[in-house]
Amino acid sequence: MKLELNRNLIDQLSQLIDQKADHDIIQIISEFHPADIAEIIEELNSDEAKYLFSLLDGELAADVLVEIPENDWNSYLKLLPPDVIAHRFIEYMESDDAADVMAELDEDLQDEVLLQLEDKEQAGDIADLLEYDEDTAGGIMAKELVAVNENWTVQTCLKEISIQAEDIDEIYYVYVVDDNFVLKGVLSLKMLIMKPTHTVIKSMVTEDAHFVRTDASQEEVAQIMEKYDLVALPVVDQIGRLKGRITIDDVLDIIREEADKDYQMASGISGDVDAGDNVFQRAWIRIPWLFIGMVGGIIGAGVLGSHSSQLEQIPAMAFFIPLIAAMAGNVGVQSSSIIVQSIASGTRSFDSVGRKLLKELTVAFSIAFLFSILIFVYNYFFNGNMRLTYSVSITLFIVMIFASVFGTVIPLVLNRFKIDPAVATGPFITTTNDILGLLIYMTVAQMFFKIL
Amino acid sequence: MKLELNRNLIDQLSQLIDQKADHDIIQIISEFHPADIAEIIEELNSDEAKYLFSLLDGELAADVLVEIPENDWNSYLKLLPPDVIAHRFIEYMESDDAADVMAELDEDLQDEVLLQLEDKEQAGDIADLLEYDEDTAGGIMAKELVAVNENWTVQTCLKEISIQAEDIDEIYYVYVVDDNFVLKGVLSLKMLIMKPTHTVIKSMVTEDAHFVRTDASQEEVAQIMEKYDLVALPVVDQIGRLKGRITIDDVLDIIREEADKDYQMASGISGDVDAGDNVFQRAWIRIPWLFIGMVGGIIGAGVLGSHSSQLEQIPAMAFFIPLIAAMAGNVGVQSSSIIVQSIASGTRSFDSVGRKLLKELTVAFSIAFLFSILIFVYNYFFNGNMRLTYSVSITLFIVMIFASVFGTVIPLVLNRFKIDPAVATGPFITTTNDILGLLIYMTVAQMFFKIL
Repeated sequence: MKLELNRNLIDQLSQLIDQKADHDIIQIISEFHPADIAEIIEELNSDEAKYLFSLLDGELAADVLVEIPENDWNSYLKLLPPDVIAHRFIEYMESDDAADVMAELDEDLQDEVLLQLEDKEQAGDIADLLEYDEDTAGGIMAKELVAVNENWTVQTCLKEISIQAEDIDEIYYVYVVDDNFVLKGVLSLKMLIMKPTHTVIKSMVTEDAHFVRTDASQEEVAQIMEKYDLVALPVVDQIGRLKGRITIDDVLDIIREEADKDYQMASGISGDVDAGDNVFQRAWIRIPWLFIGMVGGIIGAGVLGSHSSQLEQIPAMAFFIPLIAAMAGNVGVQSSSIIVQSIASGTRSFDSVGRKLLKELTVAFSIAFLFSILIFVYNYFFNGNMRLTYSVSITLFIVMIFASVFGTVIPLVLNRFKIDPAVATGPFITTTNDILGLLIYMTVAQMFFKIL
Repeated sequence: MKLELNRNLIDQLSQLIDQKADHDIIQIISEFHPADIAEIIEELNSDEAKYLFSLLDGELAADVLVEIPENDWNSYLKLLPPDVIAHRFIEYMESDDAADVMAELDEDLQDEVLLQLEDKEQAGDIADLLEYDEDTAGGIMAKELVAVNENWTVQTCLKEISIQAEDIDEIYYVYVVDDNFVLKGVLSLKMLIMKPTHTVIKSMVTEDAHFVRTDASQEEVAQIMEKYDLVALPVVDQIGRLKGRITIDDVLDIIREEADKDYQMASGISGDVDAGDNVFQRAWIRIPWLFIGMVGGIIGAGVLGSHSSQLEQIPAMAFFIPLIAAMAGNVGVQSSSIIVQSIASGTRSFDSVGRKLLKELTVAFSIAFLFSILIFVYNYFFNGNMRLTYSVSITLFIVMIFASVFGTVIPLVLNRFKIDPAVATGPFITTTNDILGLLIYMTVAQMFFKIL
């Protein structure tokens, strides 16, 4: 029977760790994939986790570490001496994972670990990778790849591949380079297997291979790989020399991360929701946006307070405060998320800012018109006060258009200033639009009650 | 110079289509990848798009069609006779794409197209795939794969692969089966190239290969491939026979789709935001949630109306309506999105429902306490009315806890009833919590003003 990963298993492991039953623990753990062990470790409390982690041997420890969330790496590594980090972890890792782990260490420690590495080529690769920004193609690529010279034959290639591939988990593509290591094209292993062995590589290469430069953003990398269905993408420097390759699993992580981040922003959470069992941590990621919401509420109270004579005169005005605020918030969130998604979906520069705003305005006008009429009809039949009926409808119309424009413009402006437009969705837009809605409501009503 | 995909190019193509300058159009289009051409087509108006599409020849037309959003397929295919659909499109497609396209056609038309296909094996494959539910492993897998018998040698394998691989775009793994086609393991091409040619396959196979059954959900497929960093996953039937394989690009689409859907739900949009230039379509995806919001607002107005004597007595009570409603909404959205994400992240059945609720309650209590104190301090210094000060703080405390529980329970209940819990985020929770907040506010205040 295959063991299943569930709460019982975690509890059982907790107990065994308590009893220091190392042999039993190792027996259970050895049934699982490193990714599963990482999940188990995340579910244990931090002392148990460290104990279990210390039981893992060499390569497995390295494989598990890579699967653990980046934020936790330091807690497993910081107490270890540089030679242990080098020989027990880094040496077993592919260059991109190794560089990611190293990037979390202090710079002094980095240098010492690099010196401890026996494979000087590996040390060099890692040092190279550490030079790139973390969220660029250079920062996510790995150095391990199979490159063949365009002048070789298929036979030479296959021989060379079996030598080069020793260190690489999987080969999806073979990269064709010239004598200066400039990328000339990409071949799949399948193409190599299917051609006669004396074929010269040059004749097989298609020219329109996809690649990115080391300074391309990780979003750009994800967009290209997603759009063209690539499982690996070569990375080149300014003059086209092959520097590394990015594989789809890294891109999947990026896509997932971006999507989670956007979703969290939209729902007012500023951090990883799997923040663990610690109440403080779990509360902490929620407080910032709630605080903004509260400040917004206080400002809203101020706006209403400064129009208190109106509210005293016509208390029924208060009834529609939630409606106006909710509609303003909802429309604003919709508009901003539409823009944020259109920015995130990326490369398409089809529509200018003006055109985007125009599209949004047409929609805003029609929606605002529809809902003003609806609320007018409702109030006409169920609310005696005609002046209030007019005020609410006109306010709703104005507020919905303002909220749309606001929701559209803010993310565009943020994006222009290279700030992630997703911060403008969710509670931020809701809060500002609440206040905006109240201001307009009070102002319109004031004017209306004077006129009529 | 490589042509760039931008608004100018689209406008230029529009003009050329107007002038029916087929030759020029084809010249421009031939510079682009099918995925790019699909993007161009989406940007043109529907007549232009159809005209351009009709200019594409055989294989390219099929490749472009696959890249166009599913909803639009029918508009390109419905007027074509079955033999054209078969010979110009389906014949060029891999079985999974072919089945996806076929699934969009009427059943009568499906049968006719299948009869028209000259490759009877392809027709059979497609018919098989059409049997599976669209969102199961069977529904997304392709039949094209390379399978080798466990008793063969590496040499036989390589020869067999070059025959089988003729029809397949890329090979990532080779599937090892026994005489009954039962899946025995997975090999990478790299492993085959690196072993001596007389090695028997059986001896190379690792037993713990990942696979799914045809009836596994697409979310499960995505979770497995993501967790274990797989680029392809074999699919088997109840008795373990190899039925097909799923590649990472399909899974990427699923992940993107799910993430987009969740994000849209959270921001109150019920459909694809790239709904095109049509104002009606763009408004349509926004109306349902706004309507719910408006109904909520009207109910809120009713709640306040039924407590109008209180509001008349203490008009300052109205000032805090937006604050209470906003905090209730924000906390609720946070709670529900935390639960929705923890459900979506899947396989982990570590925490029981009770445990999840308990965790959430501890957090809710601490947050509610914090913000009640904060608003108390504010009101104590800036608001003269002590009874109102108490009412607001106590209301806020109760409301935040209720909103948290509500936001946690609703998605869990929906999930239990197999309804996508994401529908409970965003406007739905905000709206119900708005009303809940107002009810509690009015009730608490009423009690308080009687007591004090």
